Amino acid sequence: MAEKNELQHSLRALIGESYVLTEEQDMAGYRHDGRGAAGGVPLAVVRPDSAQAISALVRWAADHDVRIVPQGGATGLVAGGVAGEGGEDVLLSLDRLTRYIEIDPVNRTATVDAGVRLSVLNAAAAEHGLFFPIDLGADPTIGGMVAANTGGARLLRYGDVRSNLMAMDMVRANADGTCLSLGGPLWKNNVGLDLKQLLVGAGGTTGIITRVTVALQRLPDARMTALVALNDPHKALPLLLDMEKALGAWLSAYEGMSQIAMIAAFAHVPGLRMPFAEIPPYAVLIELSAGGAFDESMMEDRLAAVLGPMMEGEGAPVLDVATDQHDGLWAIRHAVPEGLRAKGYVVGCDIAMRRGDVMRFRDDLADRISRDAPGFVPHDFGHIGDGGLHYNLVWDIAQGVPDFAAVEAARHIVFDAVVQDYGGSFSAEHGIGPRNIAYYRKYVPEAIQALAGRIEKNMAPVASGRVSFGLMEE
Amino acid sequence: MAEKNELQHSLRALIGESYVLTEEQDMAGYRHDGRGAAGGVPLAVVRPDSAQAISALVRWAADHDVRIVPQGGATGLVAGGVAGEGGEDVLLSLDRLTRYIEIDPVNRTATVDAGVRLSVLNAAAAEHGLFFPIDLGADPTIGGMVAANTGGARLLRYGDVRSNLMAMDMVRANADGTCLSLGGPLWKNNVGLDLKQLLVGAGGTTGIITRVTVALQRLPDARMTALVALNDPHKALPLLLDMEKALGAWLSAYEGMSQIAMIAAFAHVPGLRMPFAEIPPYAVLIELSAGGAFDESMMEDRLAAVLGPMMEGEGAPVLDVATDQHDGLWAIRHAVPEGLRAKGYVVGCDIAMRRGDVMRFRDDLADRISRDAPGFVPHDFGHIGDGGLHYNLVWDIAQGVPDFAAVEAARHIVFDAVVQDYGGSFSAEHGIGPRNIAYYRKYVPEAIQALAGRIEKNMAPVASGRVSFGLMEE
Repeated sequence: MAEKNELQHSLRALIGESYVLTEEQDMAGYRHDGRGAAGGVPLAVVRPDSAQAISALVRWAADHDVRIVPQGGATGLVAGGVAGEGGEDVLLSLDRLTRYIEIDPVNRTATVDAGVRLSVLNAAAAEHGLFFPIDLGADPTIGGMVAANTGGARLLRYGDVRSNLMAMDMVRANADGTCLSLGGPLWKNNVGLDLKQLLVGAGGTTGIITRVTVALQRLPDARMTALVALNDPHKALPLLLDMEKALGAWLSAYEGMSQIAMIAAFAHVPGLRMPFAEIPPYAVLIELSAGGAFDESMMEDRLAAVLGPMMEGEGAPVLDVATDQHDGLWAIRHAVPEGLRAKGYVVGCDIAMRRGDVMRFRDDLADRISRDAPGFVPHDFGHIGDGGLHYNLVWDIAQGVPDFAAVEAARHIVFDAVVQDYGGSFSAEHGIGPRNIAYYRKYVPEAIQALAGRIEKNMAPVASGRVSFGLMEE
Repeated sequence: MAEKNELQHSLRALIGESYVLTEEQDMAGYRHDGRGAAGGVPLAVVRPDSAQAISALVRWAADHDVRIVPQGGATGLVAGGVAGEGGEDVLLSLDRLTRYIEIDPVNRTATVDAGVRLSVLNAAAAEHGLFFPIDLGADPTIGGMVAANTGGARLLRYGDVRSNLMAMDMVRANADGTCLSLGGPLWKNNVGLDLKQLLVGAGGTTGIITRVTVALQRLPDARMTALVALNDPHKALPLLLDMEKALGAWLSAYEGMSQIAMIAAFAHVPGLRMPFAEIPPYAVLIELSAGGAFDESMMEDRLAAVLGPMMEGEGAPVLDVATDQHDGLWAIRHAVPEGLRAKGYVVGCDIAMRRGDVMRFRDDLADRISRDAPGFVPHDFGHIGDGGLHYNLVWDIAQGVPDFAAVEAARHIVFDAVVQDYGGSFSAEHGIGPRNIAYYRKYVPEAIQALAGRIEKNMAPVASGRVSFGLMEE
């Protein structure tokens, strides 16, 4: 304990008394991520407000052989941004690294400190008619978004964070805490290895992001959503292709919801307005948005031209359509996770596959799960437009608490199938952290893990982040 | 020479007699890149047709301490894909690695061998109404496009190669010639460090790309171009912002041409049709394209709504507008490089800066060049929509041949200004090779070069590619 006190004392001397938290009650707000589960109690929570102070912290950590765990908005879902057990990590909160916000409306770029929240960036950008188009349910920090390479619901139209990232300031996790500026506010720039890419989606394991420049887009002048009730989930894919053909770049989101997931949302989330007479076998939420002098009535016309013929006659694939110019229909989609959590224990699987495989996978897995993981019921929803699926298994709490082995077995059924049989991904957009590093070990070939470990070690010889992408034995 | 013959002999035994070229006349076709300048004579040109054969070649190169220089379509502009002087490099041509072409029209992806040309990929994609939207004057191979991270004229709308890249098969330049598959045909996939990023824009220095998966886009259903004659170059930027506002995602290219560059094109390139009564002080080529049920008449209307008011009255910024639904106006833009080469010795500077700085930079540099680099005359054109500028200095051949020191001094004026005074890039989209590695040494901070060198060495312990991004002394 003496050593612990000494370490805390020297941290206070380094960063300033007010910005080093060591009491459990003061640190409580930094111990939960977006999943709500608690991380360990850190040695300290440190809240520097400059890259220079972070550099000093890294040098201190190198001297004292302490691991640094960077935390952005604590909205991650893989426990990558909370301290480990054992009380030995320094949790580096970026919540005070928020001063710099520069919007360049002519260049359509924003340069912001890593601790700035997405909502704050978007409020600043909105003053110029611009926004950062990566859409998420949460309100993460920009640094965290880069560290997770978040995707979200509009990837189809705007890409992921990586494809909107122009530049990064970072502090290396090395003995010197070297500060590097990688890139600039430039749409085109190719000058050798693009080292900032090694921090994208890396969860803080390869260094600490302190400032980023991202591309902005013009806020849409017109936007509408349609919730389309389908008589059969398999109709969702041909409809996607029809919509891409009819709408071009107007199509900004194409989300799917299974019947059972919608039932859970309407049963458990208060205030949701059900737009249909009954909950259909499947529904897709289609968002149209357009810059330029277009209006919603043009969008309505365009949608009707595609959907109208699909509603006619016996066995018509489209049962009903609700439209909205606000966020009412999105509220249904966003309510699904809450509905599932209220219904039971949720085994979340953030997977991706080829778009054409999604519906076949659903049928296939429904069979496998009911046979090999009794008690778990698939409640899937997600980003059908990009092949991303939140394939969640719900264990009804009426059955009691599921045992750990059963949960793991169920998850392995899903991951084995998506990776080995469908060539898909066991981590579409949540990234890798303590929660899923075991699957990384299982599914990523050893030659890639070994190489990743060597690259990571070169980037960050001082321990940074919760996991390592190297082989465990290295 | 005995050793040389032995090496060539063992290469033939490894790859097959027919696919190892060692006679100067047979190798002549592999010695020129897109700039037309000759590289050195290689030890041999080797043309394997599989990743396995490339792996064997790498093991051979490791055993014999020979450098491998990968060559795609030989359309690069920085000499990265031609052999060095000295006769010691093996030139690895990918021109037979072309068998695998798979278009997945539902997923909107293409998986192709690295030696497949852009035109071949696009012909295969067009059968499904799709295309790979990176537009270039040349017809490179896909592997080369990744290795250069090409940008082109439609970056504004579709991004660069990196943001359209999903997966890569590669052969490591290590003693084992390890074959790795990095990623899959997935729109979302985040499983640790994304190592394929280290081969993007790296010119073959970090390994050999053998197959890639890229995202495809739907071919536009409607497309038109407008050439807008401006009374003043400074009007190009406000017009860009107006167009972005009015056209949204319909705006797919926004290219600028200086008056003197246009004069050179019309003077020296036969068959160009001049659409205006006289060549204006500046012109922008605007491309509109749209997927979905839109047509060119809607585009004409939209354009007219913006441009009409700008043509009225004394001192109106828009002097004239020509429109086209084919590629006639693009032909003018694409003729500019040829026009400049016909006019004199061209010192090409592939630079980028913030969009808002472009016109100020042009004015500034025109002064600096006329003062400090007499005899050189700026003839710029380029991608105003993304801040990319082909800032070319032309030395009239009537003045005789410029001396090397004068050329270098002129180029340094441009690069010093763009990097040091404007925070821009000395290599926007051509990448780094022997032609410009000296500028990399000058402008990239040592801490970044040192780190890049270590990462490169980890990726490729066996010499691959023409340059190294590490510090020279390492």
